[in-house]
Amino acid sequence: MAQYFIAVIGASRAGADELTAAEAVGREIARNGAILVCGGLDGIMEAACKGASDSGGLTIGILPGEHRETANPYVKIPVVTGMGYARNAIVAKSGQAVIAIGGGYGTLSEIAYARQAGIPVIGLNTWQLSRHDIQDGSIVIASSAEAAVSLAISRIMENSE
Amino acid sequence: MAQYFIAVIGASRAGADELTAAEAVGREIARNGAILVCGGLDGIMEAACKGASDSGGLTIGILPGEHRETANPYVKIPVVTGMGYARNAIVAKSGQAVIAIGGGYGTLSEIAYARQAGIPVIGLNTWQLSRHDIQDGSIVIASSAEAAVSLAISRIMENSE
Amino acid sequence: MAQYFIAVIGASRAGADELTAAEAVGREIARNGAILVCGGLDGIMEAACKGASDSGGLTIGILPGEHRETANPYVKIPVVTGMGYARNAIVAKSGQAVIAIGGGYGTLSEIAYARQAGIPVIGLNTWQLSRHDIQDGSIVIASSAEAAVSLAISRIMENSE
Amino acid sequence: MAQYFIAVIGASRAGADELTAAEAVGREIARNGAILVCGGLDGIMEAACKGASDSGGLTIGILPGEHRETANPYVKIPVVTGMGYARNAIVAKSGQAVIAIGGGYGTLSEIAYARQAGIPVIGLNTWQLSRHDIQDGSIVIASSAEAAVSLAISRIMENSE
Repeated sequence: MAQYFIAVIGASRAGADELTAAEAVGREIARNGAILVCGGLDGIMEAACKGASDSGGLTIGILPGEHRETANPYVKIPVVTGMGYARNAIVAKSGQAVIAIGGGYGTLSEIAYARQAGIPVIGLNTWQLSRHDIQDGSIVIASSAEAAVSLAISRIMENSE
Repeated sequence: MAQYFIAVIGASRAGADELTAAEAVGREIARNGAILVCGGLDGIMEAACKGASDSGGLTIGILPGEHRETANPYVKIPVVTGMGYARNAIVAKSGQAVIAIGGGYGTLSEIAYARQAGIPVIGLNTWQLSRHDIQDGSIVIASSAEAAVSLAISRIMENSE
Repeated sequence: MAQYFIAVIGASRAGADELTAAEAVGREIARNGAILVCGGLDGIMEAACKGASDSGGLTIGILPGEHRETANPYVKIPVVTGMGYARNAIVAKSGQAVIAIGGGYGTLSEIAYARQAGIPVIGLNTWQLSRHDIQDGSIVIASSAEAAVSLAISRIMENSE
Repeated sequence: MAQYFIAVIGASRAGADELTAAEAVGREIARNGAILVCGGLDGIMEAACKGASDSGGLTIGILPGEHRETANPYVKIPVVTGMGYARNAIVAKSGQAVIAIGGGYGTLSEIAYARQAGIPVIGLNTWQLSRHDIQDGSIVIASSAEAAVSLAISRIMENSE
C-alpha cells in the first residue's frame, strides 16, 4: 500500500484553538497511516507532531536552522536545511496535500508554493485569497480537523489515480 | 546619496495592460535613480527591465535556472541561483520595496516573503489577501505605475529615517 | 534509544566496485539500526538505498527536482526541494556523519558542507584534499563498507557524549 | 562590449598576505572593466570589494543573512538571500570565472559548485584537490593577483567564442 505524505503548515505562535486543531490534525494523519511533514519547530508544527507521534505516526521536520537540536521533541526525522525561510518551499512540496492552520506570512508563502506546484491546500481558519476581484478557489475550506485530513486524503487519492 | 532598490514581481505570462504597466514601472524606477530587481525572465520581468533599461537604469535579474543566458535581454546584472522557485525569496528580500503587478502563485510567494521580512508591497491589480475574516492591509494599492513607484520610494525613505 | 542518521554521498554515475560498496554501506547502516539520508537519485544513491531497504532500513531522499517520482524506488521518505544542486547542503547537514563513495564535484560540495558544519566525513575511494601544502586530515579514510559504517557510528557516539 | 563577471571567493578570516592579494585582485578586476561578485561579507570579500570599488568598479555581494546592512561597505549591489551557506552556490555560479584566495570549507564548496557548472577556477594559495590518486587539474594555479585576473579573463573569452 502506498504511503501518503501530508504537510501541516502554520505559525510558531498560535492561539489555543489553533493548537488544539493542529494536534487533532496530527492525530488523524497518523490514524490514517499517513506521514506528517512540517517545518519542525514549535507552535502549530509541534502540536501537529505531538498528535501524530502520540498515535504512533511518523513525523518529518524540515528545519530552517543549522542544528537538528532545534526540532521540536516530536519530530522523528529532522531534515537540516540551514536555509532559513527558503525551506518553506520544501515543506510545501514534500506534501502530497497541505493542511494550513491559521498562519502568518510564512504560511502564506507555503500555500503559494503548494498551489504553484499543483498540490491541494486544505484550510482551517487560514488565509483567504482573491485576485483581480475574482475569488480564488484554491484553498479548500475545512470545518474540522477530521474533515481536513479526510479532504487531504481524498485529494491525494484522486491525484494518484 | 543612497541608492534605492525596488523589486518588481509578476508572472511570465501577462496581459497587454499589465505589460504596459510593468514597462512604465521600470521607466519610473530608472527616472528616480533607483535600481530594479526582478526574477530576470520574461513577461512582467522583461517589460519592467526594458522600461528601466531604456531610461538608463540598472537592472538585476535573480534567475531560477543554471545559465545566465536565460536572462531577458534587458538584465544587466544576472544572478544565477540554480534554485528554481526557491529564488523567489531572494527577489523579494533584495528589494527595499516590492511592486507586484498582476501575478500568479509565484508572485504570491514573493509577496509573502516580502511581508514576512517587513518590506512594503505596492500592488497594481494583484492579489488581495485577508485572514480570519479580517481584511489584511499589507498590500498598498496603487492606481498607476507612477503612483506605485512614488509610493515605493516614500516607504523606503520612511524606513530609512 | 537514540536513532542515528548517516548520509551517503556519491555520484549518479559510478563504477561497479563503487556501486557494490554503496550497497554494502546501505546494508550496514540498516543492520546497525541507523537511518540513511541521501540525494535520492540513482547510482551510488540508489545502490545505498537498495542495501538499506533490503535490510529493512529507513531511507530518506533529498531530491533536487520538483517531483517525488524522481526518487529511486528504494527511497521511503522523499523530500522534494526543487532547489537543484543547492540541495547538496541539506543532504550533508541532515547526516550526523557522512560517508563519501567515489564522487564528482557534487560530492565534493557535500563534503565541504559537512566539514563546515563540523560533521565527520568517512571516505571510500573519494576526494583527497590538501590546502597550502598541508595535508588536510578532515576525511577519515575507510578500507571497506563495514569499516566506513563502523567509523561513522563511532564518531556520532563520540559527538553525542 | 560584453561585460564580464568574476567571482572572488575566500574566507571571512584571512591572513595579511591573502587580504593584500584580494585587494589587488579586486583592483585588477575593476581596471579590466569586469564586475566583481562575492559573498558580500568581510575578510577576503571585503578586501576584494575595496580594491574594485577604489578603482571605480561595480561590486555585487550575495549575502547569506536576512539584512542588506550586513554587507561590507564596498558592496554596491547587495543581494539578500537569507539562505545561509546555501548561497555559496549562487556566488560561484554568478561568476563566469572564479578566483579562489586561501579559503576554508565554504570556499571549497564554492570551488565544487563552480567546477560542477563548468566554470573555470583560478587559485591563489588555495585548496589542492585530487581524487583516486589522480591529480585533479581543475584549479588553475596563479602566481599573483594580476596573473589570476588575466587568467580569469582569458578563460571567459575562450568560453565566449
